[in-house]
Amino acid sequence: MPRSGELLERFRQVRTHSLRLAEGLSDADATAQSMDDASPTKWHLAHISWFFETFLLRDHVPGYRLFDEAFPYLFNSYYEAEGARHARPERGLLTRPSIDQVLAYRSHVDGAMAEAMAGFPEELLDLVELGLNHEQQHQELLLTDILHLFSRNPLKPAYSAKPTARAADPGPVQWIEGRTGIQQIGHDGPAFAFDCEGPRHDVLLNPHAIANRPVTNGEWLGFLEDGGYRDARLWLSDGWAWVQAEAIEAPLYWSRTSDQRWSEFGLSGTLDVDPSAPVKHVSHYEADAFATWAGARLPTEAEWEVAASDGLPNSGAVWEWTGSAYLPYPGFAPADGAVGEYNGKFMSGQAVLKGGSIATPPGHVRTSYRNFFYPHQRWQFCGLRLAKNI
Amino acid sequence: MPRSGELLERFRQVRTHSLRLAEGLSDADATAQSMDDASPTKWHLAHISWFFETFLLRDHVPGYRLFDEAFPYLFNSYYEAEGARHARPERGLLTRPSIDQVLAYRSHVDGAMAEAMAGFPEELLDLVELGLNHEQQHQELLLTDILHLFSRNPLKPAYSAKPTARAADPGPVQWIEGRTGIQQIGHDGPAFAFDCEGPRHDVLLNPHAIANRPVTNGEWLGFLEDGGYRDARLWLSDGWAWVQAEAIEAPLYWSRTSDQRWSEFGLSGTLDVDPSAPVKHVSHYEADAFATWAGARLPTEAEWEVAASDGLPNSGAVWEWTGSAYLPYPGFAPADGAVGEYNGKFMSGQAVLKGGSIATPPGHVRTSYRNFFYPHQRWQFCGLRLAKNI
Amino acid sequence: MPRSGELLERFRQVRTHSLRLAEGLSDADATAQSMDDASPTKWHLAHISWFFETFLLRDHVPGYRLFDEAFPYLFNSYYEAEGARHARPERGLLTRPSIDQVLAYRSHVDGAMAEAMAGFPEELLDLVELGLNHEQQHQELLLTDILHLFSRNPLKPAYSAKPTARAADPGPVQWIEGRTGIQQIGHDGPAFAFDCEGPRHDVLLNPHAIANRPVTNGEWLGFLEDGGYRDARLWLSDGWAWVQAEAIEAPLYWSRTSDQRWSEFGLSGTLDVDPSAPVKHVSHYEADAFATWAGARLPTEAEWEVAASDGLPNSGAVWEWTGSAYLPYPGFAPADGAVGEYNGKFMSGQAVLKGGSIATPPGHVRTSYRNFFYPHQRWQFCGLRLAKNI
Amino acid sequence: MPRSGELLERFRQVRTHSLRLAEGLSDADATAQSMDDASPTKWHLAHISWFFETFLLRDHVPGYRLFDEAFPYLFNSYYEAEGARHARPERGLLTRPSIDQVLAYRSHVDGAMAEAMAGFPEELLDLVELGLNHEQQHQELLLTDILHLFSRNPLKPAYSAKPTARAADPGPVQWIEGRTGIQQIGHDGPAFAFDCEGPRHDVLLNPHAIANRPVTNGEWLGFLEDGGYRDARLWLSDGWAWVQAEAIEAPLYWSRTSDQRWSEFGLSGTLDVDPSAPVKHVSHYEADAFATWAGARLPTEAEWEVAASDGLPNSGAVWEWTGSAYLPYPGFAPADGAVGEYNGKFMSGQAVLKGGSIATPPGHVRTSYRNFFYPHQRWQFCGLRLAKNI
Repeated sequence: MPRSGELLERFRQVRTHSLRLAEGLSDADATAQSMDDASPTKWHLAHISWFFETFLLRDHVPGYRLFDEAFPYLFNSYYEAEGARHARPERGLLTRPSIDQVLAYRSHVDGAMAEAMAGFPEELLDLVELGLNHEQQHQELLLTDILHLFSRNPLKPAYSAKPTARAADPGPVQWIEGRTGIQQIGHDGPAFAFDCEGPRHDVLLNPHAIANRPVTNGEWLGFLEDGGYRDARLWLSDGWAWVQAEAIEAPLYWSRTSDQRWSEFGLSGTLDVDPSAPVKHVSHYEADAFATWAGARLPTEAEWEVAASDGLPNSGAVWEWTGSAYLPYPGFAPADGAVGEYNGKFMSGQAVLKGGSIATPPGHVRTSYRNFFYPHQRWQFCGLRLAKNI
Repeated sequence: MPRSGELLERFRQVRTHSLRLAEGLSDADATAQSMDDASPTKWHLAHISWFFETFLLRDHVPGYRLFDEAFPYLFNSYYEAEGARHARPERGLLTRPSIDQVLAYRSHVDGAMAEAMAGFPEELLDLVELGLNHEQQHQELLLTDILHLFSRNPLKPAYSAKPTARAADPGPVQWIEGRTGIQQIGHDGPAFAFDCEGPRHDVLLNPHAIANRPVTNGEWLGFLEDGGYRDARLWLSDGWAWVQAEAIEAPLYWSRTSDQRWSEFGLSGTLDVDPSAPVKHVSHYEADAFATWAGARLPTEAEWEVAASDGLPNSGAVWEWTGSAYLPYPGFAPADGAVGEYNGKFMSGQAVLKGGSIATPPGHVRTSYRNFFYPHQRWQFCGLRLAKNI
Repeated sequence: MPRSGELLERFRQVRTHSLRLAEGLSDADATAQSMDDASPTKWHLAHISWFFETFLLRDHVPGYRLFDEAFPYLFNSYYEAEGARHARPERGLLTRPSIDQVLAYRSHVDGAMAEAMAGFPEELLDLVELGLNHEQQHQELLLTDILHLFSRNPLKPAYSAKPTARAADPGPVQWIEGRTGIQQIGHDGPAFAFDCEGPRHDVLLNPHAIANRPVTNGEWLGFLEDGGYRDARLWLSDGWAWVQAEAIEAPLYWSRTSDQRWSEFGLSGTLDVDPSAPVKHVSHYEADAFATWAGARLPTEAEWEVAASDGLPNSGAVWEWTGSAYLPYPGFAPADGAVGEYNGKFMSGQAVLKGGSIATPPGHVRTSYRNFFYPHQRWQFCGLRLAKNI
Repeated sequence: MPRSGELLERFRQVRTHSLRLAEGLSDADATAQSMDDASPTKWHLAHISWFFETFLLRDHVPGYRLFDEAFPYLFNSYYEAEGARHARPERGLLTRPSIDQVLAYRSHVDGAMAEAMAGFPEELLDLVELGLNHEQQHQELLLTDILHLFSRNPLKPAYSAKPTARAADPGPVQWIEGRTGIQQIGHDGPAFAFDCEGPRHDVLLNPHAIANRPVTNGEWLGFLEDGGYRDARLWLSDGWAWVQAEAIEAPLYWSRTSDQRWSEFGLSGTLDVDPSAPVKHVSHYEADAFATWAGARLPTEAEWEVAASDGLPNSGAVWEWTGSAYLPYPGFAPADGAVGEYNGKFMSGQAVLKGGSIATPPGHVRTSYRNFFYPHQRWQFCGLRLAKNI
C-alpha cells in the first residue's frame, strides 16, 4: 500500500478516536474552561482540524474554501506566524460555534483531506503525520482538561463509566544499574518524531541506578505522613514558595475523607487512593522534594532514555518527571515556517517528562519522546521514578 | 378570587416568562459566565427556583423533599444565613447539572408550589410575592448577562432575532421645574415593594429643574467628540482613574467601525448607533462626567421620584443614574431572617438608579423602586437624565 | 493689624508646626512609604511648600524663580490641571532630594512668601489661607502615615517620647435627643472653610438621639469578644468581604499579647489597650457592624452637625464616622482653576467623618468640617459615636 | 603566616570594601527598596554581618552575646533553618535601625571576629571564607540594587562621580574554535569555591566556535533597529509574552533621547550609549532572541568554561548568559546545616551566567563560577557572547 493510503487509514483512526473521547460530553461540558492552562474540549476538537485546514488544505489544495472565515481567528493556538488570535483565557466564552458546528467543521476537513491526500507529495505527507501526532497530543490534553473541569464541580461527575482496576502490589523498588560513559539518545531514522527529539547525539553518563518502577501512592503517603509538605529543607526554594502560596498538602485531586483517609478524583470519579498504583498529579517541585526525602534524585533525561532503550519497564500510567531542563539537543534547528513554532520556542523554564500516561493515545509514545511542563504544573498525569548515584 | 389564586396565576406567568427568556439558548450559552459580576443563564434559572424551594417549600411545607441535596450549595447566591455556597466566580464551571436538569428542577418546584400555595397564610403569600419580584430581577440580569457573554464572542451572536426599531427624534431637552420644600418619597400601602423602598418619609427639595427625557446617543457623541473621555477636569477622581486604567473611550458595547462611525452591540446584534435613542451602558462615572460637561448635574433620588409622581415621562429604555448614594431611608429596618439580607446589606458604595429598562419585565417597576450598582458598573442598561439648580 | 499681617503670623506658626512634627525623624524615616495610601514625611513637607510656590509665588509674583525645576513634577499630588506628576506608589523611592534639601526648599518658599504677602490682594490672601488649611491637613496625614510606617517595623519604634495618659472612665452612654424638622448645616460667613462645607442649607431631621461620647475600647472589646468579627449578619456585604479577605479581627494596630490581652501600637509606642479611651483605627465597615451589634446606627452628618452646634461634647480624640456619603451640598460648585480640584472630585464612594482627632492641629476643626475616607480605610484616627431613632 | 592570619587580613579588606561602597549614600538612600528583587544597602550591610554573627560567633564562640536580639529576625535572608524572618518585600520599611546603627553592628561583629579568628579550627576558617565570598556577592548586589533605585528617581542621581571611559572599538567578532570530546569542568582543589561549582566532572563537547568578546551596544542597536523587539519569530514563547506584557523595547536603563538617539543610565549617571562597550542589562530572553537574530546561539556553560580555561578573553564588563539551566553537577550534594541552603535550593528555573562584571569585586571570579538568575531578570550587569555549531 502506498504511504498515502496507509496514512489515510491512520488519519481516520486518529480522527475517530478524538470523536470517541468527546462522546459522553454535553455541549456545555465541551465549552467550559476551568483555568488558563486548560482548553475546552470543543476548542481542542476544532483546533486540531484547524491544523489540517491551515497547513495542508489552505496552503496546498488549490480552490479549497475555508469552512468558516472566522475559525482561524478562534482556533489558532499560539502560531504567531498565523496572525492574531482569540485570547487563550477566554476560550471558555465561546459558546458558539456549538459542538455540532465543530463536528461539522471536522467532517468538512476530513472530507477534503480524504480527497486530497492521495495526491500529496512526501513533504506534505510528513506534515499530515505531524498533524496526526499533534492531534494525539490534544487527545491527552482533552482528557486532562476535562478532568480538571470536572474536579471543580462540587457534583464531581465521572467522565467515564469504566471502573478503575486496583493495581497489583509492585513490591519494593529494585535498582537497575545504568550504562555509563558515552551513549546515544535522541531520535533517528525514517519514523516520525517531533523536531525536538533530534538530532540523535552522544551523551555522557555517570555511574547510577534507576528504579524499576514509578513511585507509588503508598510511598507518597509515607512522605506525606512524615510531614514532607511541611519541611522546608526538602524543597527547592521556588517549590517551597509554591507550597506555601497555594497551601499544597497532597497531590492534586486528593482529598481527605471524613475518616482521615485519602480519596482521589479521576476520570472514573472519586475513589479511595490505591497504595499500589503510581502516584500521579504531582508537580516537579513535589517530585523533587519526594526524591530528596527518599535520599535519591530524579533521573536525568539521558539516564531515563538509555535505560528505556535497554528495557526499563514503562508503567504506561504516568509521565515521569526528570531532573533535566527542556533545552535543545546539540544541533537542533526548528522546522521552517509556522510549524517551526511547534516545539523550539518552549525551550525555557520547563522540565522534561518521559514515558507516557493512561491518557496517552496508543502508539503515541516512544523512548525519545520529550514531554515538557513548568515545574508547578500538575494537572497532567505526572508522576516520578527515582534514580541515584552509585 | 382569593389572593392565593391570583398569586398562583401571577406565579405561572412570571415563571413562564423566565423560561421564554432562555428559549433560544443552548446548554453551552446557558452555562458560560463572562465575568465575576455576571451569572450564567442556567444559574439564574436555578437560583430563582432555589428561592421558592428554600424559603417556602423547605421551611413551610411539611414533608417536602429537596429536588437535589446538592442544589442549595450550588444555587444560593449570597445568603450568609443559608450557609456555605459555591464561589461566585466559578459558576461558569457548572456544566452539570445540565439545562434540562435545571428545567426539571423548575418544574418540580412549580408543581410543589402550585399544590401548596392555596394553603399559605398571608405572610407566606407575601414571601411568594417577594420571590416573584426576585425572579423578575433575575430576568433582567439574565438578559444583561447573556448580552455581556455574547459581546465577548468574536462571532457576535444576536440573542434575539427581533430587529430593534430606530427611535424617533425626541427634540431638544425641555426642563421641567420640580416641586420644592417638604415632599414625600418612598413606598407606602398594601402593594408589594422591597423593604428598602420604605418607609415613606419627608424629604426637602431645593429649587431645580429636571429634563423631560434621558440623554441620547447623539448628545453622547457630542461629549465624546468634544474629547470628554480625555479631559480630566470633567471627571470624579475615581472615575478618571477608572477611565485610564480600563482605557475607556466610549459606552460599553460601542465600537468604531472602519468608516469612523460607531456601532453598538445589543440583544439584536450589531447595529449603527441610533442618535435619537437614549444612551445606555454608561457607568455612574461617565454619567457624572457628561453632566459636568453639559453644565448640569444628575438628579437626586428624591427629585426624580417626586417628579415621576408628578408625571415625568419615563423612557422605559434605561435605568437612570441619580446623584444619590444607596443608603437606608429614615426608619428602615431589614426584614427578619435570611430574606432580610435582601437589600440592606448592600447599602455601601453604590448609587441609586431609577426608572426601568427595556430588559425590565413588564409590571416590575414603580416610582419608589431603588435599583443600585457600583459607580464603575455598566453592563446593565444604564443611562441618565440631567437636572439643574434654578 | 491688617489681614496680611495677621496671616503672615499665622503662616509662620503653621509652617513652624510642620517642622516640629518632623523633628525626631531621620532622613530615612522621612523618606519611606509604607503603603500606597500613605506618603513619606519628606513628601508631605515638600508638597505643602509646592502648594504655596505654585498657586501663589509662581502664578502671582513677577520674577519668582522656582527653587528647583524638577520639584513640581515630584511634589504635585493630584492636580490634573498642573500636568504630569510622579506616581504616588513610588514616592518612597525618592531618597533624593534629602530631608535637608526639602527643608531648604521650605525656607526658600517661606522667605519669598514673607516678602510677597504684604502686597497680596484679598483673593490671594484667601488662597494663602487655603494653603495653610491644606498644610494643616497634611500635618495630620504626616502623623497617621508615620504611625503606619512604624507599625510595619518589627522594632516598633515610638514616634513620640511623650507618654499617653490613661483616660478617665466616661461612664455609660447618655442619649441626647436631637432637634427635628428643618434645620441648617454647612458653613456660612467670612471665616475660612473649604468649598465643600457650603453652601449652608436646610436639612430635615427625624426624631433621634445621639450618644454623648464616642464608643470606647472597652465597649469594642465587648463586640470583639461576642464574636462580632465572625458574625456575617452584622456586616454590610462589602464589609464582610473585606473582613474575610484581610482576615480582620480587631482594630488596626491592636495585637493580642501573650497573656491573651490586647495591646495597641500608637505614636508613643506599644501600650495596653485603655478601656476608657475612645476606640480608634476602625473602618467604616467595622463602625457600621458595631452599631448594628449595639442595636443602634451611625448618626447622619446633619444630625451630628446640628447636635455639635447645640453643644454636643467633642472628644477631640477621634474622627467619627457618620452614616452619610460624601456628596455635594445643594448648590455646591467647585472653585475655579486648579484649586477647584481640592474637594469636589472626591465626592464618590467615600463616607463623611466629623469631629477631629488627637492628630488634628489646634484650630483646624469646626462643626461644618467634612472629612472623608473610603469605607475600608482605617489608618486615620477614626472612631465612632452611636445614634438611634426615637 | 598561618591561614587564620592571612584570612584575618582578607577579612579586613573585604569588610572595608563593603563600607567604601556605601560611602556616598545617605541614610535614606541606604534604606529604600525599589523592587522585591532588590534589597536596601543597609540591609545588605547588616545581612553580611549577620552571616558571621550567626554561623561563626553565635554557633562557635562561647559567651558571645548578640549585638541586638531583634537583628536575626530582620537580617536573615532566606535560611529556613534559621527560623522566621522579616518579609523580603518589606525591607524598605526598616528605617530603623539607622545606617549608623548598622555600621556599629558591623564594627561589633568585626571586633569579635578579629578576636576569635586566631583560635578557629580549619572548618571554621572555611566558613569564614564562605562568609567573605558571600559578602562579595552582596557587594555586587549592593551596586546593582542602588543603581535600580536611582533609576526610578526622576532626578536620576549618579552613584559615582567617577566618569565612565568610552570603550575602544573591539572590531568584528572573531570565532574561536573550542575543544571537542570529553573535557572537564567544575571546581577542584583546595582553593575556595561554592559547593555548586563542583564536583569537577567530565562533559562532552560537540564541534563549536565561540566569540572572542561579548556582544556590543552597537551590535544591539542593529538588532533593535531591525525590529528585533517586535518580531515574535525571534523569541522564546515565554520571552515574547514578557516583551509584550512589560512593553520591553530596549535594554533596561536605555532611553530614547529627544534627538532619537539612545542614552543609558548607569552608576555614573546618564550617558550616551557607547557602541563599542558590551551591552548590559539584558534578560536571558533578550539574549536568546538576539542570538537567534544573529544566526547563532548562546554558548553552553561547559563550552564557556572550557574555552575560558583555554584563555578565552574575559571582558570583565558583564556576566554572560549561557544556554544552560542552573542544575546540579553530577554528584553534587549541598553542605550540611543552614549554610547548605546556600546554592542547591535555587536549582530550578534559572539560567547560568559566567564571567563577571564591572560590579564584581576584585578576586571574586573564577572560570568555575556559576552565577544564576531567572530568564526575565536584567537589573544585574548581564550581557552575552555568541557561539555557533561548526
